[in-house]
Amino acid sequence: MNTAAPLGLTLDLAGTFAFALNGALTAVRVARVDIVGVITLGMITALGGGIVRDVLLGALPPATFLDWRYLLVAAVGGLIAFALSRQLERLATPITVFDALGLSLFAVTGAAKALDLGFGAGQAVLLGAMTAVGGGTIRDVLVRRVPTILQSELYAIPALAGAVVVVGAAAFGAPGLLGALLGAAVCLVIRLIGVGFRLDAPRPPGGSAPGQV
Amino acid sequence: MNTAAPLGLTLDLAGTFAFALNGALTAVRVARVDIVGVITLGMITALGGGIVRDVLLGALPPATFLDWRYLLVAAVGGLIAFALSRQLERLATPITVFDALGLSLFAVTGAAKALDLGFGAGQAVLLGAMTAVGGGTIRDVLVRRVPTILQSELYAIPALAGAVVVVGAAAFGAPGLLGALLGAAVCLVIRLIGVGFRLDAPRPPGGSAPGQV
Amino acid sequence: MNTAAPLGLTLDLAGTFAFALNGALTAVRVARVDIVGVITLGMITALGGGIVRDVLLGALPPATFLDWRYLLVAAVGGLIAFALSRQLERLATPITVFDALGLSLFAVTGAAKALDLGFGAGQAVLLGAMTAVGGGTIRDVLVRRVPTILQSELYAIPALAGAVVVVGAAAFGAPGLLGALLGAAVCLVIRLIGVGFRLDAPRPPGGSAPGQV
Repeated sequence: MNTAAPLGLTLDLAGTFAFALNGALTAVRVARVDIVGVITLGMITALGGGIVRDVLLGALPPATFLDWRYLLVAAVGGLIAFALSRQLERLATPITVFDALGLSLFAVTGAAKALDLGFGAGQAVLLGAMTAVGGGTIRDVLVRRVPTILQSELYAIPALAGAVVVVGAAAFGAPGLLGALLGAAVCLVIRLIGVGFRLDAPRPPGGSAPGQV
Repeated sequence: MNTAAPLGLTLDLAGTFAFALNGALTAVRVARVDIVGVITLGMITALGGGIVRDVLLGALPPATFLDWRYLLVAAVGGLIAFALSRQLERLATPITVFDALGLSLFAVTGAAKALDLGFGAGQAVLLGAMTAVGGGTIRDVLVRRVPTILQSELYAIPALAGAVVVVGAAAFGAPGLLGALLGAAVCLVIRLIGVGFRLDAPRPPGGSAPGQV
Repeated sequence: MNTAAPLGLTLDLAGTFAFALNGALTAVRVARVDIVGVITLGMITALGGGIVRDVLLGALPPATFLDWRYLLVAAVGGLIAFALSRQLERLATPITVFDALGLSLFAVTGAAKALDLGFGAGQAVLLGAMTAVGGGTIRDVLVRRVPTILQSELYAIPALAGAVVVVGAAAFGAPGLLGALLGAAVCLVIRLIGVGFRLDAPRPPGGSAPGQV
């Protein structure tokens, strides 16, 4: 399986770290949480998507829970965010880039794992996206925000696009690593364009005015 | 298994479509969500209950995720709700009836699946109700409403009643289809009476006043 | 398995009852819920942690769902809380003690089950804590509170400590029951000290002011 190869694992752990950092910082900013809460939210952001993925794949126990390296990296990311929250606030841009990187890596590894286990193309695309946005969505529910995926700048769409590239590359018989790199690049570029230009996905005709919940 | 038979499948897909439509319309009405959010909420409403059911049954991967027809019907329901949200607002009554139909079908297929897999009567009743209300509950959490099941007109009770009928019919050796039809009818009638007369289940003695959250 | 032994089962059911009572009373106090909502929230508080644990362990269907005694005890706890909510309000102290007992028992049985199934020490500690706080967290999300675990007096820390003791005792070859009793005692004492002195875990430097959400 690609994701178990050294390169895949390294990328996966990098994404986990980025998500843990980002999730814990969101927790510090949004809610009045203590150290346990910050680390918990960092770990949930980092590991939640992979757990949702593995439940839907029936691949239990979840890989991110079985392998202590994921747990450790996620906990360390949360701890760093707790200790350095003030300093890290100033690093908003690199953290957003890190988060986009995590989104890209998770979309790609999620879709690849679904294909590896013999699931269809539609399922692989959905699972890629869910792996990428699942952890952040659970975090948002816990701190009582409307989940980012439901309302803000392009977040789910790049993840879906990255997963589509992975599935498409596999359909054309491209090597898994090539598809993964292409998919991650596509997701990353769309996400960063979305952040840079504050683009949003279309809203329903005649929907609620901005600012309203 | 009954639910895989043509009639069962058709009814199940009809319930899925009704729930997706209803879930997506709720999303449009309640929260400021974009197209991804609307379709996501439609799909979660339609498929969430079945996923919860299959997790508790240990029947992973979930049937509604494995079978692309469920995914497609749910996505199309959400898309239609997104495109036609204004027009559909006027159709509140048919949509409520559709939703009650979905509730009835899911309560019955959930309970039947638990019995098929050898679970006990109590578990089958609970699972029927969870299949019916699970998706809507997850949707309500995501858009930050107190879940309908916790507070509004009879919603969980008809689902429980329908599941009880299915379990009771099976205990008396009635054919599965008969029990399913009876159970769905009972659930549907109670639900529509609840909607029509705005009935609520009893509240705790001396509890909070209405209107308070 | 220890948790299946008569003593273990009795303690586990006592914890389940305490959590159901506490969860249902929280529901009555916080939200405008009807009888279905109160019992549902009681059952979710009592059984949710064990279900999360078994999903992560891949031990599906969840034990608390398979065994009707858990379902019954949880439902009865919720029903009693519904009927006697006014009288029970005056019993705040015994209920807090009961809840602390449930926390201790669940932390210990969760960690022990993970060890029994061959998981590592880190996973066992995390699972113990999750078993203990998972149900209450799901309940808080449903009634739209920021989960206790994220912000209030020592709640997750005693659960983690109790689980650490179980894992440590097993590492030293102590009998399972001894480790369980020691772990539960440690968790209980820390929790009650936390409640008694209203201690909180450390917050991030320069974080939000108290009272803010």
